[in-house]
Amino acid sequence: MSYFRSNIEDLEPYVPGFQPKGGGFIKLNTNENPYPPAPAVFKTLREFDPERLRLYPDPVSLRLREKISGTYGFSPDNVIVGNGSDELLAIALRAFAGEGDLVLYPTPSYSLYGVLARIQGAEPVEMPLDADFGLSEEFINRSGKLKFIASPNSPTGTVYSKGLIEEMAVNFDGIIVIDEAYAEFSEENSLELARIYPNLLVTRTFSKSYSLAGLRVGYTIGSQELIEGMMKIKDSYNLNILSALLAEAALDDQQYFQEKIGLIKAERESLREKLDELNFEVLPSGANFLFCRPPDGSAEMVFRKLLEKKILIRFFDTPILKDYLRITIGTPQEMETLVRALKEILRT
Amino acid sequence: MSYFRSNIEDLEPYVPGFQPKGGGFIKLNTNENPYPPAPAVFKTLREFDPERLRLYPDPVSLRLREKISGTYGFSPDNVIVGNGSDELLAIALRAFAGEGDLVLYPTPSYSLYGVLARIQGAEPVEMPLDADFGLSEEFINRSGKLKFIASPNSPTGTVYSKGLIEEMAVNFDGIIVIDEAYAEFSEENSLELARIYPNLLVTRTFSKSYSLAGLRVGYTIGSQELIEGMMKIKDSYNLNILSALLAEAALDDQQYFQEKIGLIKAERESLREKLDELNFEVLPSGANFLFCRPPDGSAEMVFRKLLEKKILIRFFDTPILKDYLRITIGTPQEMETLVRALKEILRT
Repeated sequence: MSYFRSNIEDLEPYVPGFQPKGGGFIKLNTNENPYPPAPAVFKTLREFDPERLRLYPDPVSLRLREKISGTYGFSPDNVIVGNGSDELLAIALRAFAGEGDLVLYPTPSYSLYGVLARIQGAEPVEMPLDADFGLSEEFINRSGKLKFIASPNSPTGTVYSKGLIEEMAVNFDGIIVIDEAYAEFSEENSLELARIYPNLLVTRTFSKSYSLAGLRVGYTIGSQELIEGMMKIKDSYNLNILSALLAEAALDDQQYFQEKIGLIKAERESLREKLDELNFEVLPSGANFLFCRPPDGSAEMVFRKLLEKKILIRFFDTPILKDYLRITIGTPQEMETLVRALKEILRT
Repeated sequence: MSYFRSNIEDLEPYVPGFQPKGGGFIKLNTNENPYPPAPAVFKTLREFDPERLRLYPDPVSLRLREKISGTYGFSPDNVIVGNGSDELLAIALRAFAGEGDLVLYPTPSYSLYGVLARIQGAEPVEMPLDADFGLSEEFINRSGKLKFIASPNSPTGTVYSKGLIEEMAVNFDGIIVIDEAYAEFSEENSLELARIYPNLLVTRTFSKSYSLAGLRVGYTIGSQELIEGMMKIKDSYNLNILSALLAEAALDDQQYFQEKIGLIKAERESLREKLDELNFEVLPSGANFLFCRPPDGSAEMVFRKLLEKKILIRFFDTPILKDYLRITIGTPQEMETLVRALKEILRT
């Protein structure tokens, strides 16, 4: 007999991308930002008095919520912050979908959505993307309690248009969570829709765009009513003092932020050209990675040979994804090393 | 119509103790440690390279789990770490109790247990403590899916004996979580039982005993099977890099830790004597606070007058607790100021 609920007993957990222990890798497998956090983050950390750690943090992280809402022209009442956007996705599940309720999400996408539904005992409804990785008509029209849409999607990089998402918000009978973990690298996002639609939440993170994956800070923007309800579910002190302070510092330096985003987007398009030349099929991407198919269906071989050269990229061993690779955009130097390695591998 | 599940719609959230924004308070209301974190925490923070923040942390926090398990003679497989022990209490709820399942806990105790049960849609079963704040026979014998026991209890400070808890572990058909947030201030704890009983989990925190409330680090110890299942539920990267590193540093300095624990315990007994002299009824306490009844049922008045003097203690406005106060043990100087203020208040 197990003490666990049967849905937990049967659960296949989410498997995060490989985090190498040793150094010397070029790490292009988990979409981290290749640039250091803003100088203001360094300064804030240097000036932080560790004695403050003995006290609890502000339970509602008001200053950070003020800075986030100020940056995007919302009120702090429209913002909840969390221990990474993963915490906020889990809170949304617990808030809006009970046992047996339908939780819809496209596949392939962030595989955590299904794991969260299964943890809750809700009914995960996986709906395949179209052949070109667009949202299917069936997904767009299906009703349920909760719909997760990553835009830009991972691992494909696909951006779903604001118009399409608005159409879904109008027609859907439950809550739509737009997971915009990569939106800062895209020309289009759906944040404005959170101002209008009472059933739409937008989730973002400091992990990628602000170079703070190690800090675990995410946030969700939506109507005051939705945010208030989510606040009831979060742990009392869900964001530690240092993470809140350093995220505030990162937000303050918008010039540094925009500059680094610009570099990554430029490097993404530069890598696209080089992969084109190597006969990769490269999908459009609004994220800090490219999703691409090497020539001759050699994805797994390329992945393994790069690994031998200590270049880590992401290969997903599933029927739909096994011919593709996801490559995080690094520094120009890292991309040069990658392209040189790819040339060597594909020549042999 | 609400988009929320009805249990969330109806939920009264947990209300954390007041965190004053301005300075100048003597803060004896949320059981923080009055001493700074260990010198090793300062050193680790000073030497930390902020560039590491751009990378994800180790998803399973192996080094910290090794240090915790090493300190207590367990294996890392017996330990899960979390974003405060609150996260681990929530994970236990999600792991072991589905909608409608019975979740048992005594009252008064940590009011989060009931909130977590309601968030899940489980059935919270509040069972009053005896008149002397011991566990009731009914609570000891009642069956269910999950039983929470804080020992030392808050706000009462009561320690439940290892023998009694062992008896419950033997007889209970579900999982027992012993919340030992304050156990390091007590002469007795139940950690050894987690080695023996496959249905018993012990949860602890760095918040109080290690002066790291601001960092949010807790852990749970239990059988490998229980810990493995809980690991499937936690967020992928639930502990940020800095919190893990600084908790490791704090654990390394056991001498500093023991010294400060000793000071707080001595100060607790010293305050007890002084409160006795002021005709307070003071309960036995194994925690870093005292739970006491001022003379003439004047708890709320004493609380308010102390607040005017910028001394914050905890008053709970409920029928059972309204005659009592919970006072966190501070430094000798803070306790002296407190006692002087109490003398003034009670003289008038």
